[in-house]
Amino acid sequence: MSAISPLAPTHVPDMPVIAGVTFATAAAGIRYAGRTDVLLAIMDKGTTVAGVFTQSKCPSAPVEWCRAKLGGGKSSSGGLARALVVNSGNANAFTGKTGRQATALTADIAAKAVACKPGEVFLASTGVIGEPLDASKFNGVLGTLAQKAAPGDWIGAARAIMTTDTFPKVATATAKLGKATVTINGMAKGAGMIAPDMATMLAFVFTDAPIAAGALQSLLRSGVADTFNAVTIDGDTSTSDTLLAFATGAAAASGAPKISRAGDPRLKAFTKAFGAVLADLAEQVARDGEGARKLVEIIVEGATSKASARKIAMSVANSPLVKTAIAGEDANWGRVVMAVGKAGEPANRDKLAISFNGIRVASRGARDPSYDEAEVSAAMKNPKIQIRIALGLGKGRDRVLTCDLTKEYVAINGDYRS
Amino acid sequence: MSAISPLAPTHVPDMPVIAGVTFATAAAGIRYAGRTDVLLAIMDKGTTVAGVFTQSKCPSAPVEWCRAKLGGGKSSSGGLARALVVNSGNANAFTGKTGRQATALTADIAAKAVACKPGEVFLASTGVIGEPLDASKFNGVLGTLAQKAAPGDWIGAARAIMTTDTFPKVATATAKLGKATVTINGMAKGAGMIAPDMATMLAFVFTDAPIAAGALQSLLRSGVADTFNAVTIDGDTSTSDTLLAFATGAAAASGAPKISRAGDPRLKAFTKAFGAVLADLAEQVARDGEGARKLVEIIVEGATSKASARKIAMSVANSPLVKTAIAGEDANWGRVVMAVGKAGEPANRDKLAISFNGIRVASRGARDPSYDEAEVSAAMKNPKIQIRIALGLGKGRDRVLTCDLTKEYVAINGDYRS
Repeated sequence: MSAISPLAPTHVPDMPVIAGVTFATAAAGIRYAGRTDVLLAIMDKGTTVAGVFTQSKCPSAPVEWCRAKLGGGKSSSGGLARALVVNSGNANAFTGKTGRQATALTADIAAKAVACKPGEVFLASTGVIGEPLDASKFNGVLGTLAQKAAPGDWIGAARAIMTTDTFPKVATATAKLGKATVTINGMAKGAGMIAPDMATMLAFVFTDAPIAAGALQSLLRSGVADTFNAVTIDGDTSTSDTLLAFATGAAAASGAPKISRAGDPRLKAFTKAFGAVLADLAEQVARDGEGARKLVEIIVEGATSKASARKIAMSVANSPLVKTAIAGEDANWGRVVMAVGKAGEPANRDKLAISFNGIRVASRGARDPSYDEAEVSAAMKNPKIQIRIALGLGKGRDRVLTCDLTKEYVAINGDYRS
Repeated sequence: MSAISPLAPTHVPDMPVIAGVTFATAAAGIRYAGRTDVLLAIMDKGTTVAGVFTQSKCPSAPVEWCRAKLGGGKSSSGGLARALVVNSGNANAFTGKTGRQATALTADIAAKAVACKPGEVFLASTGVIGEPLDASKFNGVLGTLAQKAAPGDWIGAARAIMTTDTFPKVATATAKLGKATVTINGMAKGAGMIAPDMATMLAFVFTDAPIAAGALQSLLRSGVADTFNAVTIDGDTSTSDTLLAFATGAAAASGAPKISRAGDPRLKAFTKAFGAVLADLAEQVARDGEGARKLVEIIVEGATSKASARKIAMSVANSPLVKTAIAGEDANWGRVVMAVGKAGEPANRDKLAISFNGIRVASRGARDPSYDEAEVSAAMKNPKIQIRIALGLGKGRDRVLTCDLTKEYVAINGDYRS
C-alpha cells in the first residue's frame, strides 16, 4: 500500500453512534491478505434508503441490484433497507450471469444472517473488474458479522472498503430537526477512476433522522450535484460508483418530526448538514487522488450559465497538461487557456482573466501587466492550488475539485489491476 | 531534448522535389539555442491553399490570421498563397493585441522578402503560450531565407518546426492525375496537446497538382476526418492546431488537368494518395506522443453509427486508466469496459467483446472462456497494441490512434512550459 497522501486531513473526527445502525468488518480473503475486506451494516426495521449511481452504460452487478431494489419508488423493498454488504478487492463488474448470481447469493446469505428479506439488502463491491466474485466466501462470514455487529468503529468500517485509498474517509455532522438533534455520519472510498456522474466509487451516509425514502432520494440527488459530482481525479467513471443514504428514523423517539417531503421547511438545518457531510467526503476523495500531491480547486465565474461554468471547470480539471503543470509547480496559465478553449463553451479570449492562489497572472487576453514570476512560483509550492478563471461573459459560476497528475499516478495504475 | 521515441519509423522516405516550392530554415533564437526555429516556404504564383484549424474557442493569433486569409472562399487572398512562415518556440497564443501586431509584422516582413502581398503569407507558430512573440527577430532573417530558399531539404524543414517532438515527421506519395504523375509531400510536428479537432499541432502538405482552392479545401476537410482527427495523445486541444495544404499547379505543365471540383472522378488516385500522406503523418504524431512507448490502435465495431463508434473509441483512447495499463503491459480489459461505459453511447455490457492484439479476452459480458493470462501478457509486450471492441449492436465502425501514458509524459509536461 502507498504512503498516506500528504493531503490527508490532519484531523479525524470522533464519530458518534447513529441509533439504529450497527456494523462489523471481517477479512474474507476476497483478494487482499492481512486486511479487512467486507463490511456488514445492519439497520433497524423501518430504515429508509436512497441511492445515486454511476452513469456508466456498463454498470456492475451490485449497481444493477441496488437500482432494481430502489426502482424509483416502485421498488420491491419500498425504499426500505435492513442491511448493507460492501466488499473490497473485487468489483463484481463485467462478470455476466455469474455476477448476477453472486449478488443474489450475497443478498440471500445476508438476509439469513440479519433475518430480513433479500430485497432489503443493499450491495456494493469495489476492486478488480471482470473477475468472478466467489460469493460463497460470505457464507459463515456474514453470520458471524451479524452476531458481533456493534454501533462502534466507523473508521474500521471505512478502512474495510478501501482499495488504493491511502486513508479511511469519514465525516460527521449534527443538525436540529424539530427540537431533536439528529446525527449524520458518512464514509467513502475513492482514489482513482473518479469522475462524474457519480464521482465517488463508494460512499455511504447514515442518519437517525426520520425521513421518508422519496424525500431522502431528493435530498441525495440535489446534495451530490455540487459535491461528489464536482470532483474528478482522472475523468474516468467507474462501473461501480455508488452512494447510498440510510435514515433509520430512530430520532423520532427523541421527538424528531417525521419528514415526508424534501421541501419541508423543517429540513433546512438537516439539508445543510447533510450537504456538508457529502462535501467533506467528496473533498477527501480528491485529497486521496491516486498519486496526488496537490489539491486543486477550479473556480469558473462569469460564464454564460452554471452548466457552462461546470463544463469549462471540468475541462480544466481533467486536462493532463494542466494537471502535470501543477505537479511541476508551474503556474502554466497557457494550458488553462488551452483547456478553456477546448471545452467548446462560450469564451472570449480577450475577456479572460486567470488567477493562481489569488495572484492574477493573465487578463484581457494576455499576460497580466503585474505578472511576477517569482511571486507566482512561490505560491505554486502550496499543497492547495486554487485556479480562478473569470470569463467576463455572464453570471454563471461553478467550482470543481481535482488533484495534480504525478508519476505516482502512472506507477499506481501501471501496476495495479483494477 | 528527449531520446528519440522507440516508436519512430525505422524508414525515412526520400523526399522528392515539389515543383513550385522552395524553402529554407534558420536559427532565429526565438527560444531555443543551437537549433533551427524558423521555416520559410515560398510557393510559385498561382498556388492555391486550404486549411483546417483548432476548434479551440481561444485560438492563437496565427490561426486567426490564416482563417481570415482563407475566409471560406471570400478571402482577401482568394485562396492563393505565396509564402508560409512557421516558427517554433513561441505559439503567439494568448498574446492579445501584441499577438495580432506580431502576425501582421511577420507577414509584412515575409511579403517584402518574397515580393508578394501580406495577404498571401500564411503563418503558424508553436511553443510557449502567453509570451509575446518578438516578430522583429524575423527582420533580416526572412530576407536571407528567401535568397537561399531551395527545393531541397524537407527533413531539415520538418526539424525546424519541432518542439517536444523527438523526430522530424515527413511523408510523401505520388499519384496519376490525368496522364501526369503528381507528387504530394507533407511534414508535421506534434507530440503533446494532441486531440481533435484539429488533431495535430502543425502540418503542411504540398503538391504540384493543379487543384482549385475550393476543391483543395474539400479534399482536406474530408481527408482529416479519419487521419488527424482520429489521433489523440492526451485529449488536450492546442490553441494553435493548423493544417495547411498548398497546390502549386506546376504539374499542369506536364499535362495534369486543372481540377476545380473535389468530386471530379479524375481525382480518385490523387485523393487516395493525399489521404495516405495525411494518415502517415497522423500516425507519426501518435508514434511521437510525449513519453510514448506503445502505439495504440483502438478499433470499435458493431456500434450504432460511425459517430458513436468514434465517441467510444475516443473515450477509450483518452482514458488515463486504459493508457497507464498499457504502459504497464497489462491487458486490463476491465478498464476498457469502464471507458466504453462512460462514453455515454449505446452499449450493452452483455454483448460486448474485447480483443488485445487479436486475442479475445472478453465476450458476452464476462471474461472469455479461452482467456489465457500468459498468452495475453506476452502479446502486451509488443510495441503496437491493437484493442478491438465489438459492441454487437449495429454496423458503425471507427478507428483511433493513441499512445500509452507513461511517467515520462508526466516528466516532460511537469518541466516543459508549453
